[in-house]
Amino acid sequence: MIFEGSEKKVEVIVKGLNLRELGREFWADVVDKAQATILSDISNEKVDAYLLSESSLFVWDHHLLMLTCGTTTLANAVEAIVNKVGADEISALIYQRKNEHFGHLQNSTFYDDKERIEKLIDAKSLRFGPKHEHHNFLLHSNRPYTPIADDFTSELLMYDIQSQASTFLTEPGHSSEAIRDFFELERLLPGFQIDDFAFDPYGYSMNAIKDQFYCTIHVTPQEESSYVSFETNLPLGLDTQNIFKGLIEKLAPQSFDTVAFNCDMQQFMPELYNRKTVVRETLDIGYEVIFCHYYLEVEQEQKAAQI
Amino acid sequence: MIFEGSEKKVEVIVKGLNLRELGREFWADVVDKAQATILSDISNEKVDAYLLSESSLFVWDHHLLMLTCGTTTLANAVEAIVNKVGADEISALIYQRKNEHFGHLQNSTFYDDKERIEKLIDAKSLRFGPKHEHHNFLLHSNRPYTPIADDFTSELLMYDIQSQASTFLTEPGHSSEAIRDFFELERLLPGFQIDDFAFDPYGYSMNAIKDQFYCTIHVTPQEESSYVSFETNLPLGLDTQNIFKGLIEKLAPQSFDTVAFNCDMQQFMPELYNRKTVVRETLDIGYEVIFCHYYLEVEQEQKAAQI
Repeated sequence: MIFEGSEKKVEVIVKGLNLRELGREFWADVVDKAQATILSDISNEKVDAYLLSESSLFVWDHHLLMLTCGTTTLANAVEAIVNKVGADEISALIYQRKNEHFGHLQNSTFYDDKERIEKLIDAKSLRFGPKHEHHNFLLHSNRPYTPIADDFTSELLMYDIQSQASTFLTEPGHSSEAIRDFFELERLLPGFQIDDFAFDPYGYSMNAIKDQFYCTIHVTPQEESSYVSFETNLPLGLDTQNIFKGLIEKLAPQSFDTVAFNCDMQQFMPELYNRKTVVRETLDIGYEVIFCHYYLEVEQEQKAAQI
Repeated sequence: MIFEGSEKKVEVIVKGLNLRELGREFWADVVDKAQATILSDISNEKVDAYLLSESSLFVWDHHLLMLTCGTTTLANAVEAIVNKVGADEISALIYQRKNEHFGHLQNSTFYDDKERIEKLIDAKSLRFGPKHEHHNFLLHSNRPYTPIADDFTSELLMYDIQSQASTFLTEPGHSSEAIRDFFELERLLPGFQIDDFAFDPYGYSMNAIKDQFYCTIHVTPQEESSYVSFETNLPLGLDTQNIFKGLIEKLAPQSFDTVAFNCDMQQFMPELYNRKTVVRETLDIGYEVIFCHYYLEVEQEQKAAQI
């Protein structure tokens, strides 16, 4: 079965309301609206992190982030959230969607989602990257907003993983511990509380939290659509550089995208990869967003793949 | 409205049967099966060329080529053809499909089509190009075959056309003569009989024939999915080099694919473009197929597109 790894994503920042106090039952309902379920959760003083059947939900006091992949209907969840908290209570909303590679399997397009969300809240939409190449759609609320200091996000979206990683990750039956060890997550994420899940027959999801920081990894290893995403709100530095480097070296993706909010990941990307696309735009709501696409230069001719 | 320019394509070579003698009514029915209609046709001693509402059909005595774009169902037409001529009468069948950019609008996937065609005739399938990048699916009949001498095909598939070409081609109401002049087709295709059609509000299709040779151009200029395809069975040489060069210079596509059967288009491609992918494979039925993807190096950062 073909599975679309690329995520849909929503972030919502609210004014006074405490989102964590809305309770697990509310969030379970929101997740259900997106056609996913909560598998497990971890918490600390700052954030509740839910691991979902298809990706992740993070809830801080005044901020939430939800990622879903496959054929999930994240726009339904957005509708439930906005209806619950009230559009006036929302300081900023950002909805993102990667161009899909198996669009015929999706329940909606970005354009459909855009139309629905615009009925809930006035919004603007942008496309980062060329239409016929890797690109990322981004919708944001169209009302004045200024991000708080240190509001960073880095996304690393890796396609067509190769070498030993592909072999290992498509072997059925690995435990979550085995996959965690494979990625050396304890080393890469020191001090983080980790919650992870190994899917049957393969596939892996991980949430990690430490204070207000999160990291999340989602692995769709199947040959026809292999995809691994990593995302964090850690500031860029030596630690994050090690994570990016560790993941890219281990997975050897044929290509990857980076999406960075208020930071620039370009300096940390391996020289082995060609940068094909770079789009930089400052949103009206104050975030500078940089989208890049990188690919591995293939010197020699390839053979066709049998299918 | 979003329109998928990329074509599905089938070629069938038969043994003794004369395909042209099956008559226009039969071919009109085949075209109808693909959810297209015949707009006009031209003929010479070697070939009948039908211009379709969505692309083209060429019928020689023992060989046919049909291209359809948009949401057409070419696999239905293949079924009608195989049922009419009989699987035993078929020397070779090749079915191709480009990865779509708006797959959610399609009535079937390549995998669906493959399953249907395999019920009619034993076949093998290949993918030329990486899964998450521009690629081309190719299915061919799995029975002994040797191509005749001089059986060449060159395809030039251009994405995201720019500059004056985009402006001109998206102006509604141009006559087919005006578009023919814009492409300088009389100069590029000397001695060819030309049949063309300008769609409302825009879009253009052209068939040209001369002896056993054909050229065909299909233009989907709309901003959200601009695409222009050119295909010919002319041998590669100075004339074809001029056509490729003329089209690429005029259209300034952001990227393009080439697909070549028993010839190598690479020597004719402009140096301005980076070659990202090259896949070379000799099919069991004797054709050497080379798929390449080229893109225009963009030195500077881009801005996001408003949508």
